[in-house]
Amino acid sequence: MGTRLGELVERFGGQLAGSPDVEVTAIASLERAGASEISFLSNSRLRTLALQSRAAALILSPQDDDAVAAGYAGARIVTANPHAYFAQAAQYLVRASEEPAAGGIHPTAVVHGTASVDPTACIGPHVTVEAGATIGAHAVIDAGCYIGRDAVIGDHTHLFANVSFHARCVIGARGIIHAGAVIGGDGFGFAVDDGVYIKIPQVGRVLIGDDVDIGASTTVDRGALDDTVIEDGVKLDNQIQIGHNCRIGAHTAMAGCVGVAGSAVIGRYCTFGGAAMVNGHIDICDHVDITAGTLVAHSIREPGRYTGYYPITRNAEWERNAALLRNLPALRDKIRALERALKALGGSED
Amino acid sequence: MGTRLGELVERFGGQLAGSPDVEVTAIASLERAGASEISFLSNSRLRTLALQSRAAALILSPQDDDAVAAGYAGARIVTANPHAYFAQAAQYLVRASEEPAAGGIHPTAVVHGTASVDPTACIGPHVTVEAGATIGAHAVIDAGCYIGRDAVIGDHTHLFANVSFHARCVIGARGIIHAGAVIGGDGFGFAVDDGVYIKIPQVGRVLIGDDVDIGASTTVDRGALDDTVIEDGVKLDNQIQIGHNCRIGAHTAMAGCVGVAGSAVIGRYCTFGGAAMVNGHIDICDHVDITAGTLVAHSIREPGRYTGYYPITRNAEWERNAALLRNLPALRDKIRALERALKALGGSED
Amino acid sequence: MGTRLGELVERFGGQLAGSPDVEVTAIASLERAGASEISFLSNSRLRTLALQSRAAALILSPQDDDAVAAGYAGARIVTANPHAYFAQAAQYLVRASEEPAAGGIHPTAVVHGTASVDPTACIGPHVTVEAGATIGAHAVIDAGCYIGRDAVIGDHTHLFANVSFHARCVIGARGIIHAGAVIGGDGFGFAVDDGVYIKIPQVGRVLIGDDVDIGASTTVDRGALDDTVIEDGVKLDNQIQIGHNCRIGAHTAMAGCVGVAGSAVIGRYCTFGGAAMVNGHIDICDHVDITAGTLVAHSIREPGRYTGYYPITRNAEWERNAALLRNLPALRDKIRALERALKALGGSED
Repeated sequence: MGTRLGELVERFGGQLAGSPDVEVTAIASLERAGASEISFLSNSRLRTLALQSRAAALILSPQDDDAVAAGYAGARIVTANPHAYFAQAAQYLVRASEEPAAGGIHPTAVVHGTASVDPTACIGPHVTVEAGATIGAHAVIDAGCYIGRDAVIGDHTHLFANVSFHARCVIGARGIIHAGAVIGGDGFGFAVDDGVYIKIPQVGRVLIGDDVDIGASTTVDRGALDDTVIEDGVKLDNQIQIGHNCRIGAHTAMAGCVGVAGSAVIGRYCTFGGAAMVNGHIDICDHVDITAGTLVAHSIREPGRYTGYYPITRNAEWERNAALLRNLPALRDKIRALERALKALGGSED
Repeated sequence: MGTRLGELVERFGGQLAGSPDVEVTAIASLERAGASEISFLSNSRLRTLALQSRAAALILSPQDDDAVAAGYAGARIVTANPHAYFAQAAQYLVRASEEPAAGGIHPTAVVHGTASVDPTACIGPHVTVEAGATIGAHAVIDAGCYIGRDAVIGDHTHLFANVSFHARCVIGARGIIHAGAVIGGDGFGFAVDDGVYIKIPQVGRVLIGDDVDIGASTTVDRGALDDTVIEDGVKLDNQIQIGHNCRIGAHTAMAGCVGVAGSAVIGRYCTFGGAAMVNGHIDICDHVDITAGTLVAHSIREPGRYTGYYPITRNAEWERNAALLRNLPALRDKIRALERALKALGGSED
Repeated sequence: MGTRLGELVERFGGQLAGSPDVEVTAIASLERAGASEISFLSNSRLRTLALQSRAAALILSPQDDDAVAAGYAGARIVTANPHAYFAQAAQYLVRASEEPAAGGIHPTAVVHGTASVDPTACIGPHVTVEAGATIGAHAVIDAGCYIGRDAVIGDHTHLFANVSFHARCVIGARGIIHAGAVIGGDGFGFAVDDGVYIKIPQVGRVLIGDDVDIGASTTVDRGALDDTVIEDGVKLDNQIQIGHNCRIGAHTAMAGCVGVAGSAVIGRYCTFGGAAMVNGHIDICDHVDITAGTLVAHSIREPGRYTGYYPITRNAEWERNAALLRNLPALRDKIRALERALKALGGSED
């Protein structure tokens, strides 16, 4: 019960070299792919692996095709972006191999009478859906999720187990929220009176666009007065914290453990390496790449890559360097003194 | 069904300029507030926004009142700390607009016969309450929470969805624990025998005072032999980790992604910026502020602000600087050589 | 109903000085231990505390025994590694004091008919076990856990509340997964087409060995094509993120908030301080220790301790140092100019 290569090419394009009737059932790496699997070559340095691959079919670029065709006996799909083609074909094959989720509400789920659940949606065991919530067509809500009052889950969106999605928050279509994530918890907002914190109620929402992925155990806070906004196509990895009233621009991606403090506004097509941190009330323009482990303490107005982490060395070297680093002004002062002394001797520095 | 300004002033003080019968139903920002809403001005630079606001009423300071009164037509509540007043008024308005949670235990909740649940407490769907646990008056335990054996939840404390609150841990009154938080998981304690770790049972508790807020997905470990203690009024944001046997002093606040290793003792009225880290067995005195992204590797005995993060630059500059940073001793040695050479020439540095 | 010292010595070895019939019921610190408790001395500087301890028995080393025997009246167990002995004895005493979990499936749990649950396993309230999953002998699955399709939980492994353990993942024997952890969420894998991310299905698994501990709210992603592997004896603290296709070698330990990006391969017997970060596709050999707050940006081929965090100082000093740090090349250029000028004067640097 595989998928014909002809079906893939009809759906996703590409030039097929080989029989359209070859069937593939799964995806695999070049090394491991077997006679019913499809693989891909997106890095020309791996041509040798491609030549030796036992995959039924390969997806590759025109640049690699001649060299691979010379030695590889399977079918080939030639396309400008083999990695993207592979991703789409893989999604298609995985879907074909899975039983479709049977729509319906598990008998242990607690769904309020005023909630609107599309008949094609699937609500798992021990789920709670509060009053006025809306669950879209083909949405899947896995075991133990909590959907707050008047929240909206878009069509084809999938919440994995134990997600908490709070009142009035909204996610669009084709989204994925991984297990344990928390959407719409209160933002961290307080007034201070004589050193004591007084909570400011957080009455904004979280608004999430279409095609957004949110990682396991990631938290996105609701806005204080206005909303927190995650635009279309944003991809957030695991263990990320997004503070209240942030806006994350479309097609921006963040690796694990990133933190974004409240009211930061981040542009589109940005990337953040793991554990990068963004201070509050900062603006970052489109097309900015932040290296892993970097703290963004000021706004960034120009595209490009920005970095700020302490380079790792053997601990003994670090100790020597750190001792000097703690007192760079002393080094500078010595240089100034040398300059003065040299001048007194009649010397000059070009 | 709004709240009369007269009622706010009776309850929270302040000088009212305008009719006590004006009613407000909600809070909003200066820009967005409409004719049934109340806003506040705590930053004099926003006076222009205040003058243009369509809010029914403003909370503001004596310093700003004359200038605003000249042009703003709504009612004014004048008070020394408008931000704090706003926070209290906002809490009051939000509470007035919400249906009070009906006390009672949801039929799907599993509450052990020996647990003590106050009749005014509200236990949501799919909650588990183990033997001997105590749930205080007006406490709210949302869907999917787990309350361990002999745990104690104080009056008016609210646990959002899917919180895990382990055996014998205690939280006081008026606390908030956000979704997905874990209180009282085992501390990370092992003996090592020939490179292999042997778990040390963690038999201490977590003791949390009154008015403590704990963020979504934050974890606080139980003590090894003695207890982990979070004092009154502490505010922890999301994704924070507090190790076993820590003590966090009253009215200390930590932003998201902070980590505190085991047995650290932190004073009162401290603040920690996002992703700050505290090593284990460290003491930090009262009134210390730690900047975001800073690792506290030694005890701090004097109040003040402390910082230690690598400044962000364009990646190319970072590469140049980091190369030199890795070998600061070489720069220092060159300076020393210059000093010697200069001396040999008869020069002197002041 | 205590445990006889004779029983401990039979089981765990050591030389007993005192009556084998002395009974202890619990563990405690040197200061707090009372007449029915056992404590330990593993640090000779604490001898004074040991001499004053009211503990019924002490575990200590031959090196400390003479000095302590001179003044301490209780029983003594003398052993080469008192800390490890204490850990084992403590586990034994805690187990003896707990009611054994009654095997069985809570009536609110939802267990698929094709899942295999050992009759000695204990499945808590509101648990979901999907089709084909296997739960081993004496395994304990606490309230609210989710066990995916065809997942395998080994004998004597304990999942605390609200853990999400996804389809086809495997954990061996005697493991512990703390509350809120997520095992087997999708890895963060995308192809990019014209700036837009296309999800690559994550079809690998997470394979976890025996005697592995995983902390609260920690996340371990499933592999993309191949598997993510956590070897025997690994100990992960809370809030850790392990990316797809990583391999963590046996008996490696990581403190809280560590992040490991995808496809990193980490050796055996390594340690990682809190919030250390490891970039993707990096190799780290056995017996490497990474200091807290350090980013590992390149592979490490030699054992030893490695460090890279910015040292904390008072904020004002940090500002002065950071300003110079941002432009180390300017300092170096000044030194070069001085060298040239000195040479022109006829001087020489040794």
